Amino acid sequence: MPVTPFAALHHADAPLLLPNAWDHASALALAREGFPAIGTTSLAVAAAAGLPDGTAATRDETLRLALLLGSEPFLLSVDAEDGFSQDPDEVGEFARRLAAVGAVGVNLEDALGPADRHAAKIAAVKRAAPGLFVNARTDTYWSGADEREDDTWHETLSRLDTYRQAGADGVFVPALTDPRRIADLVARLDVPLNILYSPAGPTVPHLADLGVRRVSLGSLLYRRALGAALEAVTDIRDGRTPGGRTPTYGDVQALAETDPLG
Amino acid sequence: MPVTPFAALHHADAPLLLPNAWDHASALALAREGFPAIGTTSLAVAAAAGLPDGTAATRDETLRLALLLGSEPFLLSVDAEDGFSQDPDEVGEFARRLAAVGAVGVNLEDALGPADRHAAKIAAVKRAAPGLFVNARTDTYWSGADEREDDTWHETLSRLDTYRQAGADGVFVPALTDPRRIADLVARLDVPLNILYSPAGPTVPHLADLGVRRVSLGSLLYRRALGAALEAVTDIRDGRTPGGRTPTYGDVQALAETDPLG
Repeated sequence: MPVTPFAALHHADAPLLLPNAWDHASALALAREGFPAIGTTSLAVAAAAGLPDGTAATRDETLRLALLLGSEPFLLSVDAEDGFSQDPDEVGEFARRLAAVGAVGVNLEDALGPADRHAAKIAAVKRAAPGLFVNARTDTYWSGADEREDDTWHETLSRLDTYRQAGADGVFVPALTDPRRIADLVARLDVPLNILYSPAGPTVPHLADLGVRRVSLGSLLYRRALGAALEAVTDIRDGRTPGGRTPTYGDVQALAETDPLG
Repeated sequence: MPVTPFAALHHADAPLLLPNAWDHASALALAREGFPAIGTTSLAVAAAAGLPDGTAATRDETLRLALLLGSEPFLLSVDAEDGFSQDPDEVGEFARRLAAVGAVGVNLEDALGPADRHAAKIAAVKRAAPGLFVNARTDTYWSGADEREDDTWHETLSRLDTYRQAGADGVFVPALTDPRRIADLVARLDVPLNILYSPAGPTVPHLADLGVRRVSLGSLLYRRALGAALEAVTDIRDGRTPGGRTPTYGDVQALAETDPLG
């Protein structure tokens, strides 16, 4: 199969920095900032709708956001949680719908269910939407790994190998921030490694040096946006003038009206 | 009619500071911050959905957001643009639906159409949803008033009088920031005056001193949120660690799960 433009971004000089948007304006604003590809974040999709994250409740909202963004002039990768089903065929069908509305990538997390079930979902997605870049996530570190890190590490290697064999185009280990482990993982993999940026972990240039091919931001931008709004309203309430970058009304209106890359 | 809790907030010791949310999490986070009433902002509703502001295109999205927020334990006032129709009965019906899902206030802007038409909409809303606090907005200053400010001022007085007679519970003059004009307006009105906070205008304590009874933030928090996300991603891209208040993943999840006032 020919390499897609989105897959190619995982093999460029610099790692793909994939910021995660939560609505139309945030996606378009990020694209204007120069990012060729935009991800979504399941936390924001859930929080915006008042739904808990990590459950099937956000399936419809996820598709709604993909529909909103899939035809825009950037590459869209969708956070599909665990595929919103334990039935591989249903996950494949969901991925087919994402691709149909214009998504070029999907994140699929194992939520630490059985590795073979996750592998079956990955394989089903590759059958249903062969051009969709499948970023297979394992939650080994995400679920908290401090006590028996060595076990976590071996579990991670085993799972990533299984997912790779099932057809994953890339792999993702959120909450892995130890530079030594990251470099070791890069050396063992023949697919791009995605690391979740953390303010407490390596910087993007450092991650690039370690061989990471994709750096995503998860819910960080959404959470910072929310925090900045709370800072601003607190400032205003207390008689201070809020600071920081603030697009004008016209700037935001223009995001809905024009081609962000034009 | 008995004074509603929301109306009463316009007659408390301090003016009502009404922050404007754009989704479930932002509304709940603001409520947690101690704000008893939350507004919506039509710009954010439109921008989040990729629609232009100030058109009927956002009618469904506005109702959707009201449905999401109307049952939460804070007082909800909805920015309904111009009512999304030039037919007063349709505007009344829309207001009835807002009240039915739990909104206690509505903003209705004249968009500088005929004053008598706007008055007819206000009257229709008061008939259809008598308990809904109608904040009647005139766009005299919003539409740009610098050249003939004296004409704008007299037009403002005339329109507000018309809207008041039609049954408006409060009036709103966005983009009016001149302290002398604001104080003059307060002296002439027998209903609460709402002023849109602007970083370039008087502070909230100053507006309180001038007799303003309600200070809203329009799209400012949404725009600042967007700007903060862009600041953060730029910092990350350039190898800097982003700063500022940033709720954790758990903090945001909790907004969907718990009573923010509990």
